[in-house]
Amino acid sequence: MNIILLEKNEVGSDVVELTDHRATHIVKVLGAIVGDVLQVGVVNGNMGTGEVIEIHKKRPHHVLIRIDLNKPHLPEPPIDLVLALPRPIMLKRVLSQVTALGVGKIFLINANRVEKSFWNSSIITTPELYREHLVIGLEQCVDTKLPEVSLHNKFKPFVEDYIPKIFNNYEHCVLADPSGELSIQQGITKKDGRVLLAVGPEGGWVEYEIEKFEEYGFSICNMGDRILKVDTAVIALHAYISAVLKS
Amino acid sequence: MNIILLEKNEVGSDVVELTDHRATHIVKVLGAIVGDVLQVGVVNGNMGTGEVIEIHKKRPHHVLIRIDLNKPHLPEPPIDLVLALPRPIMLKRVLSQVTALGVGKIFLINANRVEKSFWNSSIITTPELYREHLVIGLEQCVDTKLPEVSLHNKFKPFVEDYIPKIFNNYEHCVLADPSGELSIQQGITKKDGRVLLAVGPEGGWVEYEIEKFEEYGFSICNMGDRILKVDTAVIALHAYISAVLKS
Repeated sequence: MNIILLEKNEVGSDVVELTDHRATHIVKVLGAIVGDVLQVGVVNGNMGTGEVIEIHKKRPHHVLIRIDLNKPHLPEPPIDLVLALPRPIMLKRVLSQVTALGVGKIFLINANRVEKSFWNSSIITTPELYREHLVIGLEQCVDTKLPEVSLHNKFKPFVEDYIPKIFNNYEHCVLADPSGELSIQQGITKKDGRVLLAVGPEGGWVEYEIEKFEEYGFSICNMGDRILKVDTAVIALHAYISAVLKS
Repeated sequence: MNIILLEKNEVGSDVVELTDHRATHIVKVLGAIVGDVLQVGVVNGNMGTGEVIEIHKKRPHHVLIRIDLNKPHLPEPPIDLVLALPRPIMLKRVLSQVTALGVGKIFLINANRVEKSFWNSSIITTPELYREHLVIGLEQCVDTKLPEVSLHNKFKPFVEDYIPKIFNNYEHCVLADPSGELSIQQGITKKDGRVLLAVGPEGGWVEYEIEKFEEYGFSICNMGDRILKVDTAVIALHAYISAVLKS
C-alpha cells in the first residue's frame, strides 16, 4: 500500500478518521507517528498528503489525518483492454496488475473457450468484489483513477454492435494471437493515439473470433513464438505496446 | 502444459514410457488416443514430436510414446536477469513467468531490503525445487532450454567482483528504478546486443546499491511513475526491453 486511498463519502472535512485495515497499515507497516506525512488520495479524485494528527497504536487501531489533496490523478493511460473472461483467481490478479500498470477501460467479454461458470462467480456478480482488486492496484502504483470495467457476456453483439460504437476512440485496435502475421510494431504505426488491446482466454481465441475481430477493424498481431499464460501475456503485451507508443 | 518435457536420462531409445503427472496430463487433459502426435522435448535438448503408441486410460495412467526430436530449442533470449531475491511465493511465480518469456541467466542476489530468511527457504536451498518452476515455464511457452540460475548471497562481491567478469557479455546493463533519470529507450541504444537487467526487491534498491551498480557500468532507467510489484515489474520490464530491442 503505497498510497492511503479514501472513498469520496469519507472526505467531508479536512480531517479524516481511519479505523479499518488502513489504520492498521499506518500503525503496523508504516510505523507512523504524529506529525508524519503520508501519501493520500481519494478514489476517482485528487491525490496529495495526509498528516497524522492522532494515532492509537493499540488495537483497535485508529488514526486521524489532516488531508491536503491538490494533485490530480495520473494522466489517463493510452491503453484499454478487451479481455476474454479468465477464471476468477486469474481475474483477480490481472485486475490489480493491469490497474497498477495503467489502463483506462476493461471490457470483460465472452469467448468460445471461456467456461460458462466463470460468469456466475461472485467476483463477476458482485461489483464490490472486483472493485477491491482495482483498488489494490491503485494502492500499489500510487494513483486514484479506477479503470472502468464493463461486462459483455455475449461475444457476437460485443464485436458487431459495441465495437463500432467505440471504434473511433482508438487509433489502433490490436488483437494478440500467436497466429498473427503482424508484429506489434507493424500493428501500431502511429504513436499518439489510444490503443484497444484484445487478449484471449487460456487456450486462445478460436478462428471464428479472430475473423470477427479482423472484420471489425482489429489488426491481428503476435508477440513472438512463446505461448504465455493470460496473466503474463496481458502484462507483457501492455508493456510492449507502451514501449512501441514511446519509441 | 503445451509440451511434454522429458529428462535426458529418460531418452535411451525412441520409445519412452510415462507413468507420472505427464501421463495423467496426456490422458485427462489432452484426452489423447493411440496415434495422436504430441509436442515433446528434452530438457536442455531438442524438441519434436511424440506419437502415442500405447495408452492406459485407467489409473495408474501409463503412456508409451515414440519420439522424433529433430528441432533445436528456441534461440537464446537476449535478456539476462539480476533479481534481488524475492519472498519464496513470489520467486516461484517469477521463475516460471520469466522462463516462459525467455531469459538466459538468472542471478538471484542479496540486497538491503531482502529479508535474510529468504536465503534459508527450501526453494533456495534445494535446487530441485526451484528447477520445477523453471520447467513449468518451459512447459507453458514450448521451449526446452532452462535458464541458468545462480545464487549470490553477498551484494558487494557480486557487484564488485562478479559483474566485471560478465560485463563484456552485454551490450547494455540496465538497473530499473523509479529514481532513474533515463528512459529505457535512452538506456538501450544499440539493438543487437545482449541486455543484463537488474530488478530490485519489494521496497526498492537503497541508494548505496544504485550507486554501486552505476559505478560498475549500469544505466539507471525508469519505466514511468507507477510503482509496481516485483512480479509485475519483471514481466513488464522484460517485455518493454524486448520491444525496444526490436524497434
